[in-house]
Amino acid sequence: MGLISTHKALEIILNETEGFGVEGIPFLESLGRVLKEDIYADRDFPPFNRVSMDGIALSFDAFERGLREFKIEGIQPAGSKQITLHNTNNCIEAMTGAVLPHNSDVIIPYELLDIKNGIAKVNINEVKYFQNIHKKSMDRNFGDILLRENTLISSAEIGVLATVGKNKVKVTRQPKVMIISTGDELVEVDQIPQNHQIRRSNVYTLVSLLKRLNIQAETAHIQDDKFTLKTKIEKYLEAYDVLLFSGAVSKGKFDFIPEILDDLDVEKRFHRVSQRPGKPFWFGKKNHKTIFAFPGNPVSTFVSCLKYFYPWYQKSVGVNYQNNDFAVLSEDFSFPPEVTYFLQVKIESKNGTIYATPIKGKGSGDLANLVDASAFLELPADKSNFVKGEVFPILRYRDFK
Amino acid sequence: MGLISTHKALEIILNETEGFGVEGIPFLESLGRVLKEDIYADRDFPPFNRVSMDGIALSFDAFERGLREFKIEGIQPAGSKQITLHNTNNCIEAMTGAVLPHNSDVIIPYELLDIKNGIAKVNINEVKYFQNIHKKSMDRNFGDILLRENTLISSAEIGVLATVGKNKVKVTRQPKVMIISTGDELVEVDQIPQNHQIRRSNVYTLVSLLKRLNIQAETAHIQDDKFTLKTKIEKYLEAYDVLLFSGAVSKGKFDFIPEILDDLDVEKRFHRVSQRPGKPFWFGKKNHKTIFAFPGNPVSTFVSCLKYFYPWYQKSVGVNYQNNDFAVLSEDFSFPPEVTYFLQVKIESKNGTIYATPIKGKGSGDLANLVDASAFLELPADKSNFVKGEVFPILRYRDFK
Repeated sequence: MGLISTHKALEIILNETEGFGVEGIPFLESLGRVLKEDIYADRDFPPFNRVSMDGIALSFDAFERGLREFKIEGIQPAGSKQITLHNTNNCIEAMTGAVLPHNSDVIIPYELLDIKNGIAKVNINEVKYFQNIHKKSMDRNFGDILLRENTLISSAEIGVLATVGKNKVKVTRQPKVMIISTGDELVEVDQIPQNHQIRRSNVYTLVSLLKRLNIQAETAHIQDDKFTLKTKIEKYLEAYDVLLFSGAVSKGKFDFIPEILDDLDVEKRFHRVSQRPGKPFWFGKKNHKTIFAFPGNPVSTFVSCLKYFYPWYQKSVGVNYQNNDFAVLSEDFSFPPEVTYFLQVKIESKNGTIYATPIKGKGSGDLANLVDASAFLELPADKSNFVKGEVFPILRYRDFK
Repeated sequence: MGLISTHKALEIILNETEGFGVEGIPFLESLGRVLKEDIYADRDFPPFNRVSMDGIALSFDAFERGLREFKIEGIQPAGSKQITLHNTNNCIEAMTGAVLPHNSDVIIPYELLDIKNGIAKVNINEVKYFQNIHKKSMDRNFGDILLRENTLISSAEIGVLATVGKNKVKVTRQPKVMIISTGDELVEVDQIPQNHQIRRSNVYTLVSLLKRLNIQAETAHIQDDKFTLKTKIEKYLEAYDVLLFSGAVSKGKFDFIPEILDDLDVEKRFHRVSQRPGKPFWFGKKNHKTIFAFPGNPVSTFVSCLKYFYPWYQKSVGVNYQNNDFAVLSEDFSFPPEVTYFLQVKIESKNGTIYATPIKGKGSGDLANLVDASAFLELPADKSNFVKGEVFPILRYRDFK
């Protein structure tokens, strides 16, 4: 029947990645986006010898000569121009973040001082040259690369971008994605379905799965009418980088999607994958447009998006797309059919190890079971019995659970 | 000196959680928010005996009586009202998602049929009663609770909300958060700092860390002037649920924050925690307003937000706030001071186990090292030598790395 393996399906998909171009955006909006330029240090870091404790700045030599009492000559706050210690037998009060005063090379913190009548008395007998001073350029030098192109921007990168004054930053443009449902049985979320109808839900699940990738997708619904389908899909193929379909790819009389995509010169790359759920998955290309047509049952759509669309997007924008997330099966499980099985599991972390426990579902169409699970465990096709303690890849969909 | 342990600090903070009320929002905007109502099945799921494969619907009895050829009486598409099999020696073509036709109780998929001249010939000799039919109410009954209050909404919950027609959903209102920087050394991101100045970065790091919790925080900068500080902070205490400060909580001459908060009748709960980085952390309350005053160095601010603000928020809105994220130290590490140490680490997953490898930093102020790391490993105060293979809590700040 021409079923291909999940491995082969993913390989084909990953050979069909696309670039979406580059755009400049305000740095604070770049969280979760992918950097498309190298970011350099615009000065040394620290840019000056920076006081790293509140206290007094004095001369190492003076201390070594035995001086323990220092007249306070002045004060060096953070954010003020560097002042000078004129008499190196004196000291200057200096604050965390301030420039180290000229002629001083030691900071002694307030905790080790008594200050009376403008004299700081030091209660220690040993200091180190340059102690409590964060030396100019110790972290980075002017011109050093701080962030490399293709970095996925986290809060740490946001801080660096602010520090070097990258008010606007180059990132990958996000793909324009249209998510399309078909099927005359579907009604809108705010409608009361008749007995033979159900509400549209898959497109919204997909919207929210894409939101986790910072993609703002649009949605549309098309009735099961060949002419309407063809006209609308043709338009969407023009306007979007990616079309995601949910449904109408199986063997039903009204499963028009493969036929219509063929009519529109979309090249089928494969149809049907040896997996459960999600067997009737169809994937194709038309020039630089990419079409994922997922099967219509809710769980098929859900897991296919995680398994195929996520890495396709990640490779397209230049970040890591390998799934390095694995879990240990916490109890025996068997699944006789020789297809890859995406098992719904609960995830637990114990002593640094991730354990996956099967959720007893009621068939692939049961969306409600997904709320008890937090990931899919990917069980390979070439085995039927999976033993407690074995390790398999997982696809997670909750961030804080 | 009155330092308290990180454990005690967190305990105090978690005793000071707040509620922010409830609001109704469009369900599609509720990803990452916390549900504040139970969600019920508004009908049975499936709501009817649902055909789960494309093929023919027929009578089990007829098949058992030996019939193998069935005249096709009609077609039952998904989304159409239930039709009736009038002659139980015949069959009806029925599509995935359709209502099972009246008088039929078996679905045989197209793969097992030959259809010619309106007659479906069945190529098997055994069927099961109700095969390939997803039975009415098999998943859930009308009135069952599908989602419970206090669920953190993932894409799975979005799908359920759509399915039951919850167009608007009750979620916790998010706290109104003002993030305040002080310090005359700070200039805006789009400005060129003078030699003794640096750019404002901590507030933006915090904005982005809060964005991961779906909180849209605001920011302000106040110069180091007592009158201005007091006037502005007083106003912010009125208008916001939470104030986050970065800086001016140490022992410097211009570290006015604790004094001014005291003037404004904010009750100090603690000042200074036995941790590195982040020792001068100050925490207080004024009625239902909560004030986190983090130390000003970038890494202190960063880790303190993850360690203290995150669980405070999570407990406040009613979701799990326990850190169940642990990692195995991948090499020996020693840190003699008897304080909790937040070690910057790289995270790797091998065979289902999470390993943490130390990043060699250059002091707590070095934001640039955070870009090489992806988490902090929390090393307890009562030990100095940490051995390869030991397990410690981690605080992660990257989602896809």
